[in-house]
Amino acid sequence: MPLPIGTTVRAFAPASLSNLGSGFDVLGLAIDGAGDTVTARRVAAPGLRLVAVRGDGGVLPTDAASNTAGIAAGATLELAGVNGVGIELELDKGLPIGSGLGSSAASAVAAAYAVNLLLGKPLRKRQLVESCLRAEAAISGRHADNVAPSLLGGLVLVRRVDPLDVIRIPVLEGLAVGVVTPDLVIHTKMAREVLPDRVPLTSMVANTADIAAFVAACFTGDRALFARSIDDCVVAPRRVELIEGGADAIEAALDAGALGSSVSGAGPSIFAFCGSMRQAGEVTAAMRAAFREHGVDSTARVSPADCPGVRQL
Amino acid sequence: MPLPIGTTVRAFAPASLSNLGSGFDVLGLAIDGAGDTVTARRVAAPGLRLVAVRGDGGVLPTDAASNTAGIAAGATLELAGVNGVGIELELDKGLPIGSGLGSSAASAVAAAYAVNLLLGKPLRKRQLVESCLRAEAAISGRHADNVAPSLLGGLVLVRRVDPLDVIRIPVLEGLAVGVVTPDLVIHTKMAREVLPDRVPLTSMVANTADIAAFVAACFTGDRALFARSIDDCVVAPRRVELIEGGADAIEAALDAGALGSSVSGAGPSIFAFCGSMRQAGEVTAAMRAAFREHGVDSTARVSPADCPGVRQL
Repeated sequence: MPLPIGTTVRAFAPASLSNLGSGFDVLGLAIDGAGDTVTARRVAAPGLRLVAVRGDGGVLPTDAASNTAGIAAGATLELAGVNGVGIELELDKGLPIGSGLGSSAASAVAAAYAVNLLLGKPLRKRQLVESCLRAEAAISGRHADNVAPSLLGGLVLVRRVDPLDVIRIPVLEGLAVGVVTPDLVIHTKMAREVLPDRVPLTSMVANTADIAAFVAACFTGDRALFARSIDDCVVAPRRVELIEGGADAIEAALDAGALGSSVSGAGPSIFAFCGSMRQAGEVTAAMRAAFREHGVDSTARVSPADCPGVRQL
Repeated sequence: MPLPIGTTVRAFAPASLSNLGSGFDVLGLAIDGAGDTVTARRVAAPGLRLVAVRGDGGVLPTDAASNTAGIAAGATLELAGVNGVGIELELDKGLPIGSGLGSSAASAVAAAYAVNLLLGKPLRKRQLVESCLRAEAAISGRHADNVAPSLLGGLVLVRRVDPLDVIRIPVLEGLAVGVVTPDLVIHTKMAREVLPDRVPLTSMVANTADIAAFVAACFTGDRALFARSIDDCVVAPRRVELIEGGADAIEAALDAGALGSSVSGAGPSIFAFCGSMRQAGEVTAAMRAAFREHGVDSTARVSPADCPGVRQL
C-alpha cells in the first residue's frame, strides 16, 4: 500500500568494493562513510520523474530512463506491480563517478530502497537486487557485485545473476579496509575492454583455489590464509596497468602491512585489507604517497570491513 | 630414529574423489572402504626395494623408481634426510587402476606413511604430501587433490602445490557419497588431453562463483546451496563424453535424489553426494542401472563423506 501523497523518504546507499582478489564479478563489500542519497516523494501526478541530480558535476543524465537511480526506481515499481503512482526523485551523489567504488550501484540501490519504502515495502531487500541489476545492465553490464553489498551490507558472494543467488559471507573480526582513489578517470567500459575473452586453464585453477581459500579463511578467521588468498592472476594485473601509480600504491600498501591490496572494480580506486582501522590509516597514507610520486593526487577512505548496507535517513 | 632391523609396519591409504564440482585440481575427498596397503620392513641391506606388487593384474611397474609407492617412499627418505637405511616394500592394490579413485595416490600415500613410521616419524603428515606429490608428478602431473585427502582424510582444498598450501574444509553433517565405477578404462593422460588450454572468462567467473558458494555451504551446512554449487562448466562436460553411459548415470543419480553428481578425477568413476548412506545406496543402484542400459557393467561403493585418511594397520 503506497504511503500518502506528500510523503517524503530518504535513503542512503553506501559505496562498495568489488573484484576482491579472485572474486571478479562475484565478490563485493560494502564500505562506510561515502555513498549516494536519494529523496523520494509521493506526488499526485502519475509517473516517475528525476527532478534533481546534485554533486555529479553535471555529467549524469537527468532523465529517469537513463540514470541508474531512475532505472532502478522504475524497475522497483514494475517488480512491485504498481502502476499510476506519482513519484519524484532527487539524487545527491556522494560518490565520485567512474571511481571503482560502485557509484552507479549506490544510486540505484538508494533509489530502489526509497521507492520501495514509499510503496509500503511490497518487496524484500533481496528482491531489490533485481531492480538494481537492471540499472547496472543499462550502464556497465549485468553484474551484481556492487549492488548486492550496497543493499545487504558486509561481504557478499553473487553466485549467479540469472536466477539471482546471493550469499552473505562473514567478515574477519576487526578487519578494516583502506581505499585510495586517485584523481584519474577510468571508464568501466574501457576497463572491461582490457579483459581477456579467454584465460589459461591454469589461471582458472589458481583463481578457483584462491577464492575457495578466501571464503574458508572468512569462516575460520585465519588471517594468514586470508592474506595469501587475496590474489588474482587474471583481471587485476591488466587493470592496474591502466592506473598511473597503481602498482606502486599496491606495493606501498603491502609494505605498510596490509593483508592484501588490489584494484577495486574497474578502478582506479585501490583497496587494502588491514588488520585494524589504525593500520588502515597508515596504509592509505603510504598509498597516497606512492601516487604522489607519480604526480597523482588522491583521496583516502578507511572503513570497518563489516558495514551495514542501504538505510533510511 | 629408524626402528630396528626386522621391524614391519603396514599402512592403509583410502581412495579419494577429485574434481568435486568446480574444484578441478583443487578439491578432493577421502572415501571409506577401498584403498591400497603397503607393508614396509627394515632390512640390513641398504637401499629401497619394492619386493612385491599384488592385486594389479600384473600391469604396474615393480621397480621402486617407477612405481608411485616406490617413488613416494624414496622421496620420504630424501625429505627426512635419511641415507643408507634398508627398506623392503610390498604393495597390495585394493583400488582399480585408472578408475578416477586416486589409485596411484593411495599407493604413494600408504608407502610414504609406512616408511615414515619405520623411520620413527621424522616427518609430519602434511610434509608427506610433498613425497606423494613427487610420485604423482612422475605418473600424471603435479597435482595433490588425491594425495592430500588420502593422507589427511575428509574434504581438502589444495590452494597451491608450490609451495604446498592445503586446507581442511568441514563436511556437511550426515553427508554420504555414492561412487560407481564402470568397467571402462580411461587413462589419466587421455582425460587430460580433452581439457582446453584456455577457457572463456565467463566460465572462470561461473566456476569461481560455484566453488566459493560450495565452500560457504560446507561451513554453514546449507544443503540446498551445496547442491546447486556442485557444478562445473569446464572440465566435467568434456570428460563425461569419454565415458560410455556417464551422462545417463549422472542424470540417474540426480533423479534418484543425489545432491550433486559428476565425474571423479579423470574418470570413469562417477560420484554422487547424497543426504544419507541409505540414499547413497539407492542412488548408486540407479546409476548402475543406467550404465547397464549401455551394456556397461559397474561396481558401486558408498561411504560417509567424512572419512579418515591414511592409517597404520
